[in-house]
Amino acid sequence: MDIERELKENRKIVDSLIEGRFPKNIDVEYLTWLAGEAPYSYDPDVIQKTIFEPMWDLLSRGGKRWRPWLFIILAKNLKVDLEKYQELAIIVELLHNGSLIADDIEDGAEVRRGDKAIHVKYGLDIAVNLSSAMYFMPLRILMEMDVDDSTFRRLINAYLEDMIRIHLGQATDIGWHRGLKDPEEITVDHYLQMCANKTGVLPRLAARFAAIAAGLNEEEERRLGRFAETIGVAFQIQDDIMNVTGAEKLGKAFGEDITEGKVTLMVIHALSKASEEDKKRLKHILSLHTRDGALIEEAISILRKYGSIEYAKEFARNMIRESWSSVEGLLPDNEYKEKLRDLANFLVEREF
Amino acid sequence: MDIERELKENRKIVDSLIEGRFPKNIDVEYLTWLAGEAPYSYDPDVIQKTIFEPMWDLLSRGGKRWRPWLFIILAKNLKVDLEKYQELAIIVELLHNGSLIADDIEDGAEVRRGDKAIHVKYGLDIAVNLSSAMYFMPLRILMEMDVDDSTFRRLINAYLEDMIRIHLGQATDIGWHRGLKDPEEITVDHYLQMCANKTGVLPRLAARFAAIAAGLNEEEERRLGRFAETIGVAFQIQDDIMNVTGAEKLGKAFGEDITEGKVTLMVIHALSKASEEDKKRLKHILSLHTRDGALIEEAISILRKYGSIEYAKEFARNMIRESWSSVEGLLPDNEYKEKLRDLANFLVEREF
Repeated sequence: MDIERELKENRKIVDSLIEGRFPKNIDVEYLTWLAGEAPYSYDPDVIQKTIFEPMWDLLSRGGKRWRPWLFIILAKNLKVDLEKYQELAIIVELLHNGSLIADDIEDGAEVRRGDKAIHVKYGLDIAVNLSSAMYFMPLRILMEMDVDDSTFRRLINAYLEDMIRIHLGQATDIGWHRGLKDPEEITVDHYLQMCANKTGVLPRLAARFAAIAAGLNEEEERRLGRFAETIGVAFQIQDDIMNVTGAEKLGKAFGEDITEGKVTLMVIHALSKASEEDKKRLKHILSLHTRDGALIEEAISILRKYGSIEYAKEFARNMIRESWSSVEGLLPDNEYKEKLRDLANFLVEREF
Repeated sequence: MDIERELKENRKIVDSLIEGRFPKNIDVEYLTWLAGEAPYSYDPDVIQKTIFEPMWDLLSRGGKRWRPWLFIILAKNLKVDLEKYQELAIIVELLHNGSLIADDIEDGAEVRRGDKAIHVKYGLDIAVNLSSAMYFMPLRILMEMDVDDSTFRRLINAYLEDMIRIHLGQATDIGWHRGLKDPEEITVDHYLQMCANKTGVLPRLAARFAAIAAGLNEEEERRLGRFAETIGVAFQIQDDIMNVTGAEKLGKAFGEDITEGKVTLMVIHALSKASEEDKKRLKHILSLHTRDGALIEEAISILRKYGSIEYAKEFARNMIRESWSSVEGLLPDNEYKEKLRDLANFLVEREF
């Protein structure tokens, strides 16, 4: 697939942008840039070990970097001055990686991108602090960017609103895992909103950044943001599918979502279709937070029995299809529009 | 003391401001205000339980609310239009409370304000997410504030820079606790910078907010910020002193800083004065992370032996004294200037 090669090349570009602003080795001069003049004196040796080393450990492990790529393709499609705006891509990617660290702590996950999760490898204290440090440090780029005050305000509003949303999405997901709500009472719209907040926000932010940089108006920014959010939700649905079909080549262990008691679109669908007995059984297994392979297989077989996996697959494909209709007229026809279409399709058809 | 009464009254005012924007009970309409229009649908029941309930649990336990008070007194001294700007006080206080949740997770502390720490009472997942949620949610206030784009930019820059700093301060503190640096290599300036970043940032932000709202220029904003930062550092030194003298009426357990292996100004002073034997012994006890009362008492007796507690006390008093000289001419003479002086003195003389 051509798109996989393009993502790989893009990865190099994004990582060198990141390294230009967030180097692997830091000193006092760097910290003065990042955090402003120190009245006394920074201790870069220790900050190196507790922030920059674990951050680069995580970044070096991989990741598709599709969010910054989405920003770049959209920006190119919209003829944005990338000399000026390209570093917005860094912000989106670092926010994403910061959120992964928090995610792993919150889910009690032990593995991330083929190595120990950051809190397991470096300790909870370092991980908790690093996670939210990565929500703020990249914003120094925006503080330094040569944009007028009104553009600055729009960019920051997009960032702040999406950071508020990401925490509401996570709060919802955590509450459901903890069984604070009967899974049968969770609607498809609740689920989609949780995904929009958890997984849709960062592509949404990438798209809003591109729209603002292109000088689109607020209504156009909203439409483009909504389009990218939808791609993010479809991406999440595909992620959930891969977790129970075993199609996933990397990342989480097969069936781990069942262990976590995760309420997915498939679960919601099955609960709405299943016999009383199967419904009860599925809810019971999800509440156990079990690692027992036979139980996990049983839960998945209930999803299969009611066609819930196929339902979710079709649902995601439809979302992508429909989301195009709202932005077709907004995006000029050029090669980047085609790349965007390829990316969107890839995100729901991929198997990693 | 008059100031304690004033703080108490101020507390009521600040809490009702907070509750006006962050109510104890929320619904879909509220979430739409906080996070924007939902394309699908929010689940307020669960967000209530995982964000608003634990947040208000923490807020209701107390706290001095001196940071928002600092903002209000400074704003009044500078004749700021408080009708317009008073809600900036909310931002400062919620950031502070969010950082306490992170602090307790990172230090493994079990108690906060006389009840279980949030991660102990509600779970690590809820606490980690809530902590950084509180770094963003209050910013909705600023997004909605009727200020021009250039004022908005200055307010946001102050916020972002200080949020970057707070994470560097925490990273430094964590690294030292973990023994990533020989305590003897930590200088007084390193320590003061760590405090400036950890404890100085929020008063600094309160002061910068007041300066910007008053229309002061950037140099004046910097001076006022520096003044408040110094008060914060002196406050931290007093906090550290109370922990080893047992003067503290509330909060952390006596000697807990020794258990945490915390490198304080007293420790740095003692390490620079002590005999080789005492030095070795002090470093050893700090590295043990012990809860043994006799060992904690022994470490404190070394601090006493070299006059390190008195040294720190004098140091903090001098800081407050000197910090005044830089802002004397900037602040108009009125009753609020006197209140400010009372607050600064109170913060280094207090015993709770």
